[in-house]
Amino acid sequence: MSDSALPIAFNPAGILLDPKKGLSRQLYHALRARVLDGRLSGGARLPASRDLAAALGISRNSVVRAYDQLYAEGFIEGRIGDGTYVTQLPEKKTSPPKKLSTNLSTGFSTGLPTGLSTKTPVLPVITSSKVIHSSALHKVARHSLDSPPSGPPRAFRVGVPAFDLFPFDVWSKLQAGFWRKPDLQQLCYGDPAGDARLRGLIAAYLRTSRGLACTPEQILITCGAQQGISLCAQLLVELGEGVAVENPGYHAAAQAFAIAGAQVLGVPVDQEGMQCDALAGLPHCRLAYVTPSHQYPSGVTMSLARRLALLDWAERTQGWIVEDDYDGEYRYSGAPLSPLAALDRQGRVIYVGTFGKVAFPALRLGYLVLPKALIEPFAQRRSLDMRHSEVSTQAVMAEFMASGHFQRHIRRMRRAALSRRNTLLAHWPQGVEGLGELPAIVAGLHVTVAVSSLEREQALLALASQVDVEINGLSRYWLRDSTEPVDNRAGLVLGFAAVPEVAIKAALARLSHVWR
Amino acid sequence: MSDSALPIAFNPAGILLDPKKGLSRQLYHALRARVLDGRLSGGARLPASRDLAAALGISRNSVVRAYDQLYAEGFIEGRIGDGTYVTQLPEKKTSPPKKLSTNLSTGFSTGLPTGLSTKTPVLPVITSSKVIHSSALHKVARHSLDSPPSGPPRAFRVGVPAFDLFPFDVWSKLQAGFWRKPDLQQLCYGDPAGDARLRGLIAAYLRTSRGLACTPEQILITCGAQQGISLCAQLLVELGEGVAVENPGYHAAAQAFAIAGAQVLGVPVDQEGMQCDALAGLPHCRLAYVTPSHQYPSGVTMSLARRLALLDWAERTQGWIVEDDYDGEYRYSGAPLSPLAALDRQGRVIYVGTFGKVAFPALRLGYLVLPKALIEPFAQRRSLDMRHSEVSTQAVMAEFMASGHFQRHIRRMRRAALSRRNTLLAHWPQGVEGLGELPAIVAGLHVTVAVSSLEREQALLALASQVDVEINGLSRYWLRDSTEPVDNRAGLVLGFAAVPEVAIKAALARLSHVWR
Repeated sequence: MSDSALPIAFNPAGILLDPKKGLSRQLYHALRARVLDGRLSGGARLPASRDLAAALGISRNSVVRAYDQLYAEGFIEGRIGDGTYVTQLPEKKTSPPKKLSTNLSTGFSTGLPTGLSTKTPVLPVITSSKVIHSSALHKVARHSLDSPPSGPPRAFRVGVPAFDLFPFDVWSKLQAGFWRKPDLQQLCYGDPAGDARLRGLIAAYLRTSRGLACTPEQILITCGAQQGISLCAQLLVELGEGVAVENPGYHAAAQAFAIAGAQVLGVPVDQEGMQCDALAGLPHCRLAYVTPSHQYPSGVTMSLARRLALLDWAERTQGWIVEDDYDGEYRYSGAPLSPLAALDRQGRVIYVGTFGKVAFPALRLGYLVLPKALIEPFAQRRSLDMRHSEVSTQAVMAEFMASGHFQRHIRRMRRAALSRRNTLLAHWPQGVEGLGELPAIVAGLHVTVAVSSLEREQALLALASQVDVEINGLSRYWLRDSTEPVDNRAGLVLGFAAVPEVAIKAALARLSHVWR
Repeated sequence: MSDSALPIAFNPAGILLDPKKGLSRQLYHALRARVLDGRLSGGARLPASRDLAAALGISRNSVVRAYDQLYAEGFIEGRIGDGTYVTQLPEKKTSPPKKLSTNLSTGFSTGLPTGLSTKTPVLPVITSSKVIHSSALHKVARHSLDSPPSGPPRAFRVGVPAFDLFPFDVWSKLQAGFWRKPDLQQLCYGDPAGDARLRGLIAAYLRTSRGLACTPEQILITCGAQQGISLCAQLLVELGEGVAVENPGYHAAAQAFAIAGAQVLGVPVDQEGMQCDALAGLPHCRLAYVTPSHQYPSGVTMSLARRLALLDWAERTQGWIVEDDYDGEYRYSGAPLSPLAALDRQGRVIYVGTFGKVAFPALRLGYLVLPKALIEPFAQRRSLDMRHSEVSTQAVMAEFMASGHFQRHIRRMRRAALSRRNTLLAHWPQGVEGLGELPAIVAGLHVTVAVSSLEREQALLALASQVDVEINGLSRYWLRDSTEPVDNRAGLVLGFAAVPEVAIKAALARLSHVWR
């Protein structure tokens, strides 16, 4: 370890790397910690990768990988021809939140998510869905539900991974093994928080693969992500309170909050994700539901500045952030992004994870990572809701993880999704009237493409449907009473992982034919 | 078919029996229908079994079985040395419900459940638990939860069937079979109401084995009975509304209603079950939760008069009855009783069924039978709560039922429970101070024994615990703010099916030793 002066204002002294462990990961964590605690302040220049590698006695490749991850997560930024600098992050607010003026549509940036950038929109800022709580039945019946489509997977169903590649033979053997000689104790009533071994393995996975430090006690097993969101809605929201959701966004989450009695408040999304400045002006709002890794459906990654602003808001208001990391495992360059929850020091973030996007959708198995104060209330509520999740699925997933199948399968799924993405990119029809360019797809399982008007969106969807191609209109992801002009809401949302490359190619050929 | 005059006021003309089907079941249904629609009026004398058998040209045995079932369900009654008569049922009320006077503890019968009859109690009539809705977290945290005990089963754990006899080898093969060559369509998102084949098989089972006519569409698959109850709580109860529950009763249900915002109102139980007359006097109450087949924990069967009064109340108030038939499969003489839902003509009863008491508790698989008007709202809510239940468990249970294993296993479980019950009866310690006699046990998996005082109950429980015997105090089944004197709440609740006969005998020997 060298402590000789470097040609720039950065001293690597104190960065102790264990050569037996992943060097780039360790360096990433060390630099990240210094940015967050201010030892590396905004605007500070980092050494060139070759200089830092020499100073630390590690390979330049390790430094480049650490820098890439820090760059992807917004901790550092590059200036072309000038080097690498620590991102200038916003000051932490310490004053109590101020109400914005009644004209809420002033004072916000009007950036747009990637893929929507062909338009010059006038963004709505705050929209709210109807609050329905007068009749418990009406609460549900008045909502049009965002149920996922059923039937065999086809191009381009959204939200479905390449589960045709799941090792069902392995799963079958593990299931048979569990049932052949079951431990009777396991078949009595179980822990409402879930199988202890599985919770430990999930905590270990999140620590090593996602940079999220958590204990097994913080893991609560759920029947999929939707149940995790629904639990948050029912336990953390008071009747009539506001809940901030991304607009456009994931309706099934908004609906879960609405039926729990929340007033759903849409917050616009731009290139940096949810416009968190708007939160302070929302009435009685103490919960925000966000998809920071890969905004649903726009695909935007929430910037580091916004992440910190969101955490700051939650700390000041003693509010909650529900982070839905529904497809965080899928990133096509570098490691998956570290979740927002990894930045949380005050226990304000509830992280929602699922196995459905890595294994198969019908596997109703997900989890929450809970701040310590919420562990006991969530487990108790879950006990009253349904006792606990099905035991064999939990035990079999634990064995699947412990024996290395899970990590292997994630890599397989990532490769498959990448290959299917590439097929989409290679055969995407060009020159279709009103249809924007495919944006770069660096993460996730779906892509959003801009369309010039709602009328054109509907026309393209109808033509796709005629040739048996399933595409979602972007317009349906907006809250019902959004003030955004309808033509600005238009677009296509395509899932590219649900079917093999040959089916993607065939579907695109049919689309090219009918769309031109 | 003869239409010759019989020596009594009963004409069997019109009773057409198909000799290819179960004759006693058909006769039971025909007579039951005549009692319910008034063709056979209260007080009418039925022919002696041998005369009716001759008139219908069937065996006397078939008539006796039909009479036995009608007798068990309260449609007919015997007068010693005098023959068999149709039960005099109460007139249907047509006037709007009247409010009772503010002193609600007047005007009720003071009968007591079987097994509690050693006392002369002053019954409380209306009690209510604290309504907690101010903070979503407090809603849960302030309740002491009735979580089922975990750990290996031991004598005399309540709520656990003889699941050591479950054919895990068969289940293991069916699980492996499902996973070996799964239909990919089944592994996408499924129907929130559940697997279509399983729903059809459950409807057929309820029709033929339980006398409950329902269609597959009315079946909603749940993760166990608790989730079914919780769904009812969240969909059918408005904030602050009253919900009537049996007192003593099943706390986990009361708690599910409380966290949904209901004011839980305890209604006393006597020899005929819940004292339904009290319902009309309850404030803002439109839902009653009952266990009519085998009241939990007293073991009382709700009388036919009470069943009809309860249905009458629900029809007049447009209210709902949640019927939890948690152990209805277990009856030790004759067929299981027909559920309350089978008497429902106006779609006011939600029937809660579970596989957990026939298979094993950790199998989180149950169902609701919904009135037609509730099918769609319940499925939609369930979709938002968790999408749907785990698919393989549903598919495997469907195969288990379709191939005859289920019916065989029910018979096996009934025999095992009967044998374990007999072991309890044969070795129950006699002459223990303050401990009542074991009552007759005609149904279910547990028994309640009276104890002279709360102090004595606690002493007996402490001694049992010392010798590793698990018994529940009856006192814990009462609502927290019951006005019933504490000594009248004392008793022991013992589950007799959880462990084999040899373990029951050994536990009773240890109890005899410490209790005397």
